[in-house]
Amino acid sequence: MEQSPTARATRGRPRSEAVERSILDGVIRLIEEGTPLAELSVERIARTAGVGKATIYRRWSGKEEIFVDVLRTLEAPPAVLPGTSMRDDLVVLLEQIRRRGLNLRASAILHNVFAQMKTLPKLWDAYHSTVIEPQRRRAQDVLRRGQENGELRADVDIALAHELFVGPMLVRTVMRSDAPLDEGLSERVVDLVLGGLRPSE
Amino acid sequence: MEQSPTARATRGRPRSEAVERSILDGVIRLIEEGTPLAELSVERIARTAGVGKATIYRRWSGKEEIFVDVLRTLEAPPAVLPGTSMRDDLVVLLEQIRRRGLNLRASAILHNVFAQMKTLPKLWDAYHSTVIEPQRRRAQDVLRRGQENGELRADVDIALAHELFVGPMLVRTVMRSDAPLDEGLSERVVDLVLGGLRPSE
Repeated sequence: MEQSPTARATRGRPRSEAVERSILDGVIRLIEEGTPLAELSVERIARTAGVGKATIYRRWSGKEEIFVDVLRTLEAPPAVLPGTSMRDDLVVLLEQIRRRGLNLRASAILHNVFAQMKTLPKLWDAYHSTVIEPQRRRAQDVLRRGQENGELRADVDIALAHELFVGPMLVRTVMRSDAPLDEGLSERVVDLVLGGLRPSE
Repeated sequence: MEQSPTARATRGRPRSEAVERSILDGVIRLIEEGTPLAELSVERIARTAGVGKATIYRRWSGKEEIFVDVLRTLEAPPAVLPGTSMRDDLVVLLEQIRRRGLNLRASAILHNVFAQMKTLPKLWDAYHSTVIEPQRRRAQDVLRRGQENGELRADVDIALAHELFVGPMLVRTVMRSDAPLDEGLSERVVDLVLGGLRPSE
């Protein structure tokens, strides 16, 4: 899994964190002012932050990587899995998606970046491979462990099982911005998918 | 529920169907040539079809409504519900989503319109209220009948139950264009959500 440039730079050179933060803040300001992502060049980002282009390229490979770091601010810090059961781990993973949804609703700017991202395939791919894909792999590992210890039906495909758990949460966070994202939703979804919607008697 | 202008015109004046079809074909041609939706004015659409703007406005309220009719070509004809059980009705409704996903993958043009739509709130709203919302209401009616006849747990919220069934299919059709949409997927999803993912013993 690729480390984010931010994480890399932060760890090695603590003083440069401020530089990065001010570059990202500059980008957010430009987006706030209504600049479409397609018009945000590295040159303009550098000018806004008052640094040279080389300073940008030492940290990011290009503007797509910068936008991904802006979107990364939507993410809660990576959740610690309790490891007590597959069920409990899944609840924590769904909570991560629920929180991203709440953050997305709270921030008009990030919502805007998120919407524009879908029309820029390179940015969508970068976001997907560095933010979403690692979470998906992690969730599938949880499900595989569940199959091994008998918490999950052995005859169900892991990819499909994953979509059964995350699909309902993604519908609410990504597609239906008016749907409730109330506390307890993650537990409810996990327990319903595990127990099934057929009446028990 | 609003009737689509196409349906209205087709029923009342069969001969104008050809005019409409040629206007929609002209729009599709412009999109094929790479014209972004935002640059497609009613004037340009009229010029391409060789008709006056009034001819357009007799049929559609504006370009958003035209684009929705273009997107409507993604839809299979409204599915007939077998009515034999909630389970069978849900399978048919999920099949509708699966087919839309397959059509979306088969057509680069419609895929393009679909992606751009998400950045044009008015178009997204129009698509949602005339195409998606009626399907959602229909599915929720099926679920309510299921609750009444004992096929669906009585303690589960209808909106959430709906998302549990359609969420996994939407993830595959809308978000992960590389995921399999194989035959039998609708049955599999419905039966897994009904039966639950917990091993039965």
